[in-house]
Amino acid sequence: MVSSDIKTHRMESMIEPATEVHGPQIQNITAGAGVFNQEEIECVSELWEEYLTLGPEGCGYNFIVYREGHQVLGFACYGPRDLTNGAFDLYWIAVDPSARGKGVGRALLTASENATREMGGRMLIAETSGTSHYESTRKFYFGMGYENEARIRDFYATGDDLMIFIKRI
Amino acid sequence: MVSSDIKTHRMESMIEPATEVHGPQIQNITAGAGVFNQEEIECVSELWEEYLTLGPEGCGYNFIVYREGHQVLGFACYGPRDLTNGAFDLYWIAVDPSARGKGVGRALLTASENATREMGGRMLIAETSGTSHYESTRKFYFGMGYENEARIRDFYATGDDLMIFIKRI
Repeated sequence: MVSSDIKTHRMESMIEPATEVHGPQIQNITAGAGVFNQEEIECVSELWEEYLTLGPEGCGYNFIVYREGHQVLGFACYGPRDLTNGAFDLYWIAVDPSARGKGVGRALLTASENATREMGGRMLIAETSGTSHYESTRKFYFGMGYENEARIRDFYATGDDLMIFIKRI
Repeated sequence: MVSSDIKTHRMESMIEPATEVHGPQIQNITAGAGVFNQEEIECVSELWEEYLTLGPEGCGYNFIVYREGHQVLGFACYGPRDLTNGAFDLYWIAVDPSARGKGVGRALLTASENATREMGGRMLIAETSGTSHYESTRKFYFGMGYENEARIRDFYATGDDLMIFIKRI
């Protein structure tokens, strides 16, 4: 018996570059994540359109999805920061609320770090808010080995600081 | 005798929004400033094209020039940071080397701060490099009341840190 004979009912799960078919699910996950406001949801949409139109090399935004069968459980978007040699931004990372606690976010972030390294990146930068609403996000980055290298008071709004998390890779 | 009768040979000097006619001089000043590399010079050119095509509200980039008669002595480019409520970026500021020491840079930066305030901005952010090549730039920001609120080691390249200067306005 060779391995191809083994039938399994385990759902295929994998991380891969996003394609046009994943667009609606990416939008749904962004809207349903509970941490993004309307302007941020529209920003994801704009980057996604650029990604589809220009491709990742053309626009600098790389979208990857974590999917189980045809269902997208989460996505990440990263790319090189203009005018730097080796600094990469993690623009977005979001997981479907129904798929939390399964390691989807960790797998997406690890994949983003690996891709950054392969593209010559020396660091991955994740910017987030200092408000209590984003406490689990900050814990997630700390747990993944990121350091909070800078904090800009009142950046997003009065009382809403920018926290710059960085992992040197 | 009324004031309009007084003839003067003093050259009119003023700061105003840039228009299409200033484009070549802005490019020359950028290229001649001595602190911008080719990628940065091209970046100014791209922002300028967006400014001409979409206007400052459409693209978020505001170009102003300091001119004496028809000669542009310097320019600045600033605008609101996406996804924030009141954080503004000073994207570029440059003065023609032949016009240094006349207060052109100070006047352009002050005008950018005033415009930021009028547009509801709470802070103006100037990012620059930590290398010795940019020492006079950093002194300029310190002298204008900016504080170095964050430093990201090796951001632009290995050995080339990002220095984030901020003035709360």
